[in-house]
Amino acid sequence: MEVRTLQGIGVSAGSAYATAVVVAPPVTAPADEPAPADADAELVRVKAAFEQVAAELDARAARADKTAAQILTATALIARDKGLHKAAGKHLAAGSGPATSVHRAVEEYAAQFEALGDYFAERVTDLRDVGSRTIAAVLGVPAPGVPTLTAPSVVIALDLAPADTAVLDRDLVAGIVTQEGGRNSHTAILAAQMGIPAVVHCADALSIEAGTSVSIDGDSGAVVVNPSAESVAALADRDSKRATLLSATSGPGKTSDGHAVGLLANIGGVDDAVAAGAQDLEGVGLFRTEFVFLSAKTAPTLEEQTDIYTRVFQPFGTDRRIVVRTLDAGADKPLAFADLGAEENPALGRRGLRLSQARPELLETQLKALAAAASATGADVRVMAPMVATVEEAKWFADQVAAAGLPKSGVMIEVPAAALGARHVLAPVDFGSLGTNDLAQYTMAADRMQGALSDLLDPWQPAVLNVIKAACAGAAELGKPIGVCGESGGDPLMALVLTGLGVSSLSMAPSKVPAVRFALSRHSLEACQRLAESAVSAATAAAAREAVLSAADPELQALLT
Amino acid sequence: MEVRTLQGIGVSAGSAYATAVVVAPPVTAPADEPAPADADAELVRVKAAFEQVAAELDARAARADKTAAQILTATALIARDKGLHKAAGKHLAAGSGPATSVHRAVEEYAAQFEALGDYFAERVTDLRDVGSRTIAAVLGVPAPGVPTLTAPSVVIALDLAPADTAVLDRDLVAGIVTQEGGRNSHTAILAAQMGIPAVVHCADALSIEAGTSVSIDGDSGAVVVNPSAESVAALADRDSKRATLLSATSGPGKTSDGHAVGLLANIGGVDDAVAAGAQDLEGVGLFRTEFVFLSAKTAPTLEEQTDIYTRVFQPFGTDRRIVVRTLDAGADKPLAFADLGAEENPALGRRGLRLSQARPELLETQLKALAAAASATGADVRVMAPMVATVEEAKWFADQVAAAGLPKSGVMIEVPAAALGARHVLAPVDFGSLGTNDLAQYTMAADRMQGALSDLLDPWQPAVLNVIKAACAGAAELGKPIGVCGESGGDPLMALVLTGLGVSSLSMAPSKVPAVRFALSRHSLEACQRLAESAVSAATAAAAREAVLSAADPELQALLT
Repeated sequence: MEVRTLQGIGVSAGSAYATAVVVAPPVTAPADEPAPADADAELVRVKAAFEQVAAELDARAARADKTAAQILTATALIARDKGLHKAAGKHLAAGSGPATSVHRAVEEYAAQFEALGDYFAERVTDLRDVGSRTIAAVLGVPAPGVPTLTAPSVVIALDLAPADTAVLDRDLVAGIVTQEGGRNSHTAILAAQMGIPAVVHCADALSIEAGTSVSIDGDSGAVVVNPSAESVAALADRDSKRATLLSATSGPGKTSDGHAVGLLANIGGVDDAVAAGAQDLEGVGLFRTEFVFLSAKTAPTLEEQTDIYTRVFQPFGTDRRIVVRTLDAGADKPLAFADLGAEENPALGRRGLRLSQARPELLETQLKALAAAASATGADVRVMAPMVATVEEAKWFADQVAAAGLPKSGVMIEVPAAALGARHVLAPVDFGSLGTNDLAQYTMAADRMQGALSDLLDPWQPAVLNVIKAACAGAAELGKPIGVCGESGGDPLMALVLTGLGVSSLSMAPSKVPAVRFALSRHSLEACQRLAESAVSAATAAAAREAVLSAADPELQALLT
Repeated sequence: MEVRTLQGIGVSAGSAYATAVVVAPPVTAPADEPAPADADAELVRVKAAFEQVAAELDARAARADKTAAQILTATALIARDKGLHKAAGKHLAAGSGPATSVHRAVEEYAAQFEALGDYFAERVTDLRDVGSRTIAAVLGVPAPGVPTLTAPSVVIALDLAPADTAVLDRDLVAGIVTQEGGRNSHTAILAAQMGIPAVVHCADALSIEAGTSVSIDGDSGAVVVNPSAESVAALADRDSKRATLLSATSGPGKTSDGHAVGLLANIGGVDDAVAAGAQDLEGVGLFRTEFVFLSAKTAPTLEEQTDIYTRVFQPFGTDRRIVVRTLDAGADKPLAFADLGAEENPALGRRGLRLSQARPELLETQLKALAAAASATGADVRVMAPMVATVEEAKWFADQVAAAGLPKSGVMIEVPAAALGARHVLAPVDFGSLGTNDLAQYTMAADRMQGALSDLLDPWQPAVLNVIKAACAGAAELGKPIGVCGESGGDPLMALVLTGLGVSSLSMAPSKVPAVRFALSRHSLEACQRLAESAVSAATAAAAREAVLSAADPELQALLT
């Protein structure tokens, strides 16, 4: 068998070797589908296709968690709807081909669902998913979306949408490869969150055929089709040595000479909180509260929010800190109940705190709910605002937080202006937290969601490191702590640089904590400072990383190469 | 009469006092327009309306420059098209009201034009303009767009589109006020280019009734309806004193102690070049070459470009420098012949040099044409690239420029990364030029076209000044000159700060040169350095400007307040 190596960007560490399953693209009825020879016979076939789809959905529901199971079961009911079958039969009788008949029946239903509004309108996506799967079954082509996994698999896709990942059987996904997407794509963030090795932005990934053996290296970004047994064993050996090495250190993060660097988790909801709470880490450095808002059609009430925040805080007891980021909506994450209108450049628009200033009642309710949940749980809660650029904005936010009776306020440092002006911007608040993804996006003027600009968005770009350095210097001048909650903090080498620049905590996907803890334990603060200086003064991103890697502890080098 | 003051942002200095004319919004046929009582009589009325529109277009053509006149005359011919009248008559006979009939006839024609393609498809906008104006005439409401001016006027508009400003009779526009738009809107840039006082982002501007007397102050941004004779006289007096003061200095820009600061023009084409060439300034700091490309349907040939560049260079002889920016297209300025697809955030997308790297043949032809025009005229031409972020990009561009046989290459410093990494990024090239508008946009993470974010985009934001300071320090380290070609350079106070930070030339709308020259002549280099330091270390934009203003030369203070 031909051995073939593809190269992408490794975004979630570790290796995997398994059979490839390919996420098929959506299926549509062929435009030139012939009329059925026997409409009645075709209707039997169409009904069987609907039932096949319903059975698949039931099977997936049986394996999914409660929320997902409810959705999948309800979707199976749609596939078994007799009215829908009848509508397809009507089109068959009128001379449409079977796939076309399914499509038309689904679209008629979709129009009715939409007219009914509310609950039904929200099911249109599920209805169309049923249609697309049934058409695939009728045509005898692979079902679109993520196939049902039956064994450990490497999932290959153009890119994964949130809806795809929600139905992934996490126990059976050994690795993920996407042809598109960048370092900050949904896939990259989710894979790291789940601790699954992943490679993104891998040209030609879709040329890999389902059923072939594939090994992927989430560190180097290499994807090998039909790899040799030796290379697979070498990767497994590396992973196993790494696991042994990493398991030798535990507890709070610190450098070899005892300088403390808090190791924290990025979380997005109650499930993440429960998972992170069980791990060896010092709390939460970034709780993204968007999920509470983005799926809602009306503003969530004080009670609803208090309930959710209480459940997020509980796993961390009263001694581990929880840093909450207030609503970061607007622009590309529009709120149904607070839409400020379309924008030419959403990433440069009225998002984050700018939206909160335009709709202060949303922030007020959120802060009240956070205060109530903090009070109910006794949790050590600290609240920070996204997209702060000026000292005036920081002051406004600090006033709101104080008015809600919350003890500590902070600001995200993700706009270059906030980093460069940190000695002013941090003055009204208690702490800062560097959002390295957005900071890189604005410093490089390159959309973080554009795979084509990946090179510019390399977190090792010296200009971005210089912006971080300026922010740390400003924080130090004021004697205020500054952390990192962007993906950079989860890279063990970068963690050393950040520590050297003066960062006092690192927040990341929990799966990344052990390697970072290990890296810190192998270097003194002074060594980190030397590494930081060499990175900051490099001419290019590649030179910056190379300078740090070549001067790092040999065991860490071995871990990373 | 009630005196009423509105406040906007002054974007083009000087005052104006004249009668308000209001740019009416587009007109559409009423949905409930009744059927005509007498279709034949209505057709006479509709034809008269078409003729009225045609006559207005002819009248405007008589006053416009050659290119605009050709377009206006051709548009008048559309209004007189007998087939169009006949089509309207058909709809009248079928029972549609007169405005509706005009609308339908125009849309039928538009569909035909579009089907014909090429030349005709391009006329659809003009056709619809004829339709909208004819409907207004039929309904007896003000014609949409800029009214025909018959006396000096203050033009009031929601915002002005390029198409509106193209037909403005510049001799009769005393001032411009727009309700929307920001410091960097088309209106702001155009008004400065023409030297017409202008105020943008003026809330309630459209509440000003046509025909009332209005005074505007393009410095303070104040717009007064029915102003007192005293206040008008005071503004006129200020302008006249300013003119006297400014006319006292001339020649190359320099500080009071003789430190040279080049005073240059921003230009966008041949007309601008001819106008700027006749002025007391030292050449061109920014020739935007987009106009050569953006209106073309196919890539302009080497010969076409050589011809245009030759005509742009000629007015500056062989001793005044001309800095040419290569094609800055992509994203929000898409090229018909090199479209890279829609982008979520065009301002952070594949624009400028990134597009040139994706389509190198465009840049190659442009550089060849520039070299040919430079050789034909003997002009002192220097070529720079837009949207450079890294040293790798700068090196690539420098290689292209050298290969074309052009002697000097440079890069725009408009991405924060390029400013912060100037000591690397400028190494492969001969000079840098700060694009302060984009630099502020990225540093503040605020879309420069969004009026709602104007405060964040104040050019006095200390963070932006710090980015400029870092760029100047990097250039100084390499001993390379760095200029400014963003709008900041045209603000006399800011010019002092920029000079103090180490900028060696300032490029601006030619109308702004005299005030900047005067400001420089009143301060030593050391004084500029002190002013710069006070601005850079301020906490807020307002504090930065105030610190500089209060320490500036008293005569300059008087000029600006």
